Amino acid sequence: MNFADRLNTAIDKKQSCIIAGFDPRPEMIPNIFHKLANKYSKNNQQYIFKLLTEFHGFCLSVIADHVSAIKPNLAFFEAYGLAGLEAFEVLCKEAKGFGLPVIADAKRGDIGSTAEAYAQAFFGESKISERVLSGFAVDALTVNPFLGTDSLNPYLNACKQYGTGLFVLVKTSNSDSAWIQNCKDENGLTVSQKIAQWVDQAGKEFIGECGYSSIGAVVGATYPEEASNLRKLMPKSFFLIPGVGTQGGSIETAKAGFGSDGKGAIINISRALLSSFSDLNSDLDTLRVELNRNILKFKFK
Amino acid sequence: MNFADRLNTAIDKKQSCIIAGFDPRPEMIPNIFHKLANKYSKNNQQYIFKLLTEFHGFCLSVIADHVSAIKPNLAFFEAYGLAGLEAFEVLCKEAKGFGLPVIADAKRGDIGSTAEAYAQAFFGESKISERVLSGFAVDALTVNPFLGTDSLNPYLNACKQYGTGLFVLVKTSNSDSAWIQNCKDENGLTVSQKIAQWVDQAGKEFIGECGYSSIGAVVGATYPEEASNLRKLMPKSFFLIPGVGTQGGSIETAKAGFGSDGKGAIINISRALLSSFSDLNSDLDTLRVELNRNILKFKFK
Repeated sequence: MNFADRLNTAIDKKQSCIIAGFDPRPEMIPNIFHKLANKYSKNNQQYIFKLLTEFHGFCLSVIADHVSAIKPNLAFFEAYGLAGLEAFEVLCKEAKGFGLPVIADAKRGDIGSTAEAYAQAFFGESKISERVLSGFAVDALTVNPFLGTDSLNPYLNACKQYGTGLFVLVKTSNSDSAWIQNCKDENGLTVSQKIAQWVDQAGKEFIGECGYSSIGAVVGATYPEEASNLRKLMPKSFFLIPGVGTQGGSIETAKAGFGSDGKGAIINISRALLSSFSDLNSDLDTLRVELNRNILKFKFK
Repeated sequence: MNFADRLNTAIDKKQSCIIAGFDPRPEMIPNIFHKLANKYSKNNQQYIFKLLTEFHGFCLSVIADHVSAIKPNLAFFEAYGLAGLEAFEVLCKEAKGFGLPVIADAKRGDIGSTAEAYAQAFFGESKISERVLSGFAVDALTVNPFLGTDSLNPYLNACKQYGTGLFVLVKTSNSDSAWIQNCKDENGLTVSQKIAQWVDQAGKEFIGECGYSSIGAVVGATYPEEASNLRKLMPKSFFLIPGVGTQGGSIETAKAGFGSDGKGAIINISRALLSSFSDLNSDLDTLRVELNRNILKFKFK
């Protein structure tokens, strides 16, 4: 099944355009999970693995019915080395168990031959002699277009082969995103607009029954006017909208990125959801109630 | 010791500006290593780990005296999941044993708070309660500036703290690199020139005794004219020059990126060095002779 359709189905089923960002910050994880990790680990690697997997398992069980996907950011797993990446692998598998698509927020970008290796890492499998090694097998990946269209094309081939999706950085949510993204080509198009045209064009082959394409765009909630203009250039692309919450965007400003039928977009909440427990010493029941209240506060379709 | 000075010392000691790119492609690894991996592994993960570590150990032992650093590209390790990343960790440690600086070619780029996590992953260590988890602890990292200066600044802090270096993508070696990199800002500066100015400015604090800065630039050997112009904007930055060999650049075209004193640059050779054995069925001695001949062909100072 086409990735855009899988995502759209999840949105309809959960009645939620919200996706949960998993950016684990150990100092924001409630103490009950630290105690558990401490009890069941013999070294620091086991500790962080146990801490992340137990915390994420808990979070998934509370929010699974209210989010349409999860978006782990690789940086926060790589920060803990192999143990962190093992926890990423477990998170991907558990999310699948809950029927949640996984969008790996890795923002990868490299020359064509290397992009093929990244596509293999996140979507595919490696065949070495007769041995098959499966990759992280996520449903979609964020990619950075800085190197040019020849750095993006290999991901399209992989998406065709595996039925996966892409979210290309078009207009990021951070304060200095204009620095490069608002520069212009000889025809007066901004970098964001150029990328948008590419996303629109490349996505045509990937439009699902829902009317949107698996080749999507990252467009920040912090620039609603630009989001609205970029939407005109990419009427059929799924938008992944970050920047709501800690970064200053809101559900209201995020709406500028939705399609004309009010669909075709997902809004990511990271820190404001999983890193915002009011009391890190709370017991499990209290944490569950608070997380549930938080996700319902954002839930939106 | 300042990273630029460490790199410069290695160049002087090895009498070589060449660095070896480690982009493992199992189908290009000689069969003797596949046989070894097959003999000593119980599953596919152990197989790939054994294959990469044995092959890389062999390569390091042959080339260590003739290259000034190594540049593993993360994509080719991530492609094999956790086993691949474990092989990356081993490669980093072994390179240190050989006194070779490690430049992790990861091309990471994300918003500030996430960039901090990437800096932690590659340079630093994580403290969780009283537990310390060390990261990959490489000497330098390639970074993608697409998100803006606020996405680059966290790496500077980390470089200050850990004595490490950065290579910011300024002009990449691939054929479509102009797509974004030649767009212009309102003052007529190209994206590459804007980044070059930032690299020059940010690097001032990091200039070592060798006269070059630890905050460097990636500038492809495939665009010598632009490299020469960019060098004028970054007279003190270390250049990492890719694109020699398979991509069409040569040692001659790479020279355009060197400083006015003929120093301050390293040239990467990836596929043309470690993925170009003429007969994959050769025995170890024959492979050693061929690899030695190959590295001496490129060796240059």
